[in-house]
Amino acid sequence: MQDTLDRLWAVLESRKAAAPEGSYVAKLYARGPDYIAQKVGEEAVETAIEALRAARGEAGARQAFFEESADLLFHLLALLARLDAAPADVLSVLERRLDAGGHKGEVP
Amino acid sequence: MQDTLDRLWAVLESRKAAAPEGSYVAKLYARGPDYIAQKVGEEAVETAIEALRAARGEAGARQAFFEESADLLFHLLALLARLDAAPADVLSVLERRLDAGGHKGEVP
Amino acid sequence: MQDTLDRLWAVLESRKAAAPEGSYVAKLYARGPDYIAQKVGEEAVETAIEALRAARGEAGARQAFFEESADLLFHLLALLARLDAAPADVLSVLERRLDAGGHKGEVP
Amino acid sequence: MQDTLDRLWAVLESRKAAAPEGSYVAKLYARGPDYIAQKVGEEAVETAIEALRAARGEAGARQAFFEESADLLFHLLALLARLDAAPADVLSVLERRLDAGGHKGEVP
Repeated sequence: MQDTLDRLWAVLESRKAAAPEGSYVAKLYARGPDYIAQKVGEEAVETAIEALRAARGEAGARQAFFEESADLLFHLLALLARLDAAPADVLSVLERRLDAGGHKGEVP
Repeated sequence: MQDTLDRLWAVLESRKAAAPEGSYVAKLYARGPDYIAQKVGEEAVETAIEALRAARGEAGARQAFFEESADLLFHLLALLARLDAAPADVLSVLERRLDAGGHKGEVP
Repeated sequence: MQDTLDRLWAVLESRKAAAPEGSYVAKLYARGPDYIAQKVGEEAVETAIEALRAARGEAGARQAFFEESADLLFHLLALLARLDAAPADVLSVLERRLDAGGHKGEVP
Repeated sequence: MQDTLDRLWAVLESRKAAAPEGSYVAKLYARGPDYIAQKVGEEAVETAIEALRAARGEAGARQAFFEESADLLFHLLALLARLDAAPADVLSVLERRLDAGGHKGEVP
């Protein structure tokens, strides 16, 4: 888990300084944070829809759900990078909640 | 990054067998995958909105964006857990894309 | 169709000047356009999920889909009202597209 | 308001029997209700984002908000049509709420 996310994060960070021809990340950065935020919302809709299909055991849906989840995670990390934030800013929130007894003050 | 996500995942897995009184994760599991999928979509909308505010430097928005991103990540992992999948199912997609040259066949 | 939407719009407009105790529309207006926009996104996620259930003939889903669609339409109109716009601003776009040959330049 | 929606609905209905070459509505119908539901979710995310921009008086955002709202309304009606429902199914919910005292039992 760690290795892949660290590797992806390193790519996202590196694209700020320089990017290869046709880089998708560079295109996202150029379109700006509003567009990447829109993509996060849209990929989450697709993730939700594939999850419903997967929950019903429909053909191909389980893999499609993983693919859409990957798209969602990818764009969430790209959004953090574009706003000059870091995964640690989000993970520290999760860490704090686990310590303090969970999501929104509830036992997790 | 790794430690927090592993710790959260362990909590999510453990709640399948037994959960403390009032556990939020247990409530999510009981409501089923469609509801958790809905939460993923809704938290992504909130994440997107806070990202727009943060991108404009509005007061409190940056922390709100991290909190909503944490909510989104939390519910995405809970959805994976509820569907008896694992983070590796998503990370392997990201890994494959990094190896194969990126998101949707584009250079990342 | 006309009568109900006109009636709803009249209520939405009237709440700008004065609202009865506990008015939901007045609460929406007070929370501001960002919150109403968030609700539009969230209600659309719920509408999409109920549509998937309805498409599979699941019990109660068809009526739930209509209820969520009504929530979505209600909040979209409230968002227009809060931004001092009017249904005609949206309908004129639809009208223009029908005249010009459809959605995004395609035949409708 | 009435005329445009009635006109759009007539087009949506007519495309079930026959559609001109390249018809966008016919393509939506062929992709099925899940895809149209996904579009409803995605267009709502775009509508919400443009609403935030419009609320801040950003250049071009007000018209973009109307365009995205039109896309949202268009796909919601197409989803109703594809599921062999009708606008009246949604409007009757709104009508009932206005009679009964509003959204979710609150004064509207």
